[in-house]
Amino acid sequence: MSEIKPVVAILGGTGGLGTGLARRWAEAGYQIIIGSRSQEKAEEAAADLRALMQERGAGQVQVLAMDNIAAANAADIAALTVPFAHHASTLLSVKEALQGKILIDVTVPLVPPKVARVQLPAEGSAGQIAQNLLGEGVNVVSAFQNVAAVHLQDGQGMECDVLVCGDNKEARAAVIELVEAVGLRGFHAGSIANAAAVEAMTSLLIFINKQYKCHAGIKLTGLDR
Amino acid sequence: MSEIKPVVAILGGTGGLGTGLARRWAEAGYQIIIGSRSQEKAEEAAADLRALMQERGAGQVQVLAMDNIAAANAADIAALTVPFAHHASTLLSVKEALQGKILIDVTVPLVPPKVARVQLPAEGSAGQIAQNLLGEGVNVVSAFQNVAAVHLQDGQGMECDVLVCGDNKEARAAVIELVEAVGLRGFHAGSIANAAAVEAMTSLLIFINKQYKCHAGIKLTGLDR
Repeated sequence: MSEIKPVVAILGGTGGLGTGLARRWAEAGYQIIIGSRSQEKAEEAAADLRALMQERGAGQVQVLAMDNIAAANAADIAALTVPFAHHASTLLSVKEALQGKILIDVTVPLVPPKVARVQLPAEGSAGQIAQNLLGEGVNVVSAFQNVAAVHLQDGQGMECDVLVCGDNKEARAAVIELVEAVGLRGFHAGSIANAAAVEAMTSLLIFINKQYKCHAGIKLTGLDR
Repeated sequence: MSEIKPVVAILGGTGGLGTGLARRWAEAGYQIIIGSRSQEKAEEAAADLRALMQERGAGQVQVLAMDNIAAANAADIAALTVPFAHHASTLLSVKEALQGKILIDVTVPLVPPKVARVQLPAEGSAGQIAQNLLGEGVNVVSAFQNVAAVHLQDGQGMECDVLVCGDNKEARAAVIELVEAVGLRGFHAGSIANAAAVEAMTSLLIFINKQYKCHAGIKLTGLDR
């Protein structure tokens, strides 16, 4: 565990998954910056989170609101939680601000309306696209793609392991620390090419949710053998 | 459960995964045909399995040996357990024999030597390749790609769910019955396009096995919510 916690920005952080992660990291004592294309939306989400923290009697939690570029500039680590349609444009806008940092890519390349069907991009995965776009100066690490937003929001039933993919092992380890901070197990799962498996699994889980009327996740087994 | 069990052929059934499945299905009372390119190799694997069944005091279990084409002709359902390098050629050889039947594709498109890195084919998955090659007259259902051969062999620690993908729901249901016959849980996981997720996950599990020195599998969670 690091002594000094990194400042975490959540880019496109006003949706279900972004606010869920923000909440869990704030509860764990991380300083949070909610980023959005719109400063106003970021302010709203940050105000909601501050109110929630106060209601819960949480201590000094700093939650800031910024536009995505300012948030990326101010952060030590950034997480990206945007729909796939805004993935590339958001990345290009923060490319300079992220140099030398870690980007946690949570994006799943769903292609509406058939979101329960695996339709991976030609590059292999959203994570690979992010690494290609941002260049070698940014360590892209994919994570959290299989975690249901509803579980992060209510903090209940989070029986989902987080498979952490990225080309740099130390960057993966830093993200695994952030996974554990939200109360989940994180595992080294290989290079950023392997993000394809985790992103594709999300469509399977969406199918299973519809088929079996549930909020499914996956857990690793056989680790102790 | 069907009253009359289908005859199951295992094409390329002399390797670790093929003999593991054959053993579990034979124990469950299915009539098994071990198929191979070489009649001799098929005979050896069948003889081993018969000896094992006798040793265990199993009742009347019929285990036959045939070349792949004869096995596909004689079977009600066929499973394919070959290395990806022999996937297309084996499928073409049994295409006619499989018309009107179900093919369970267990193939994972690993690209040696980097088998812990996801490298899916341009078509998306081995399962999709099989469906394209065999045509609409064959119901391709992918399954068992994440199950470690060692677990099927020894019947221990099989804490791995089987995600069953295929375009035809009845065909998936027939395969789920065969999954349950080996003692595992099987789930409808969408169209054959979704095989990409399960096949890719195998490379992640290989990475995790090396990283954490284990035989990892995956299990669905959150089904009861």
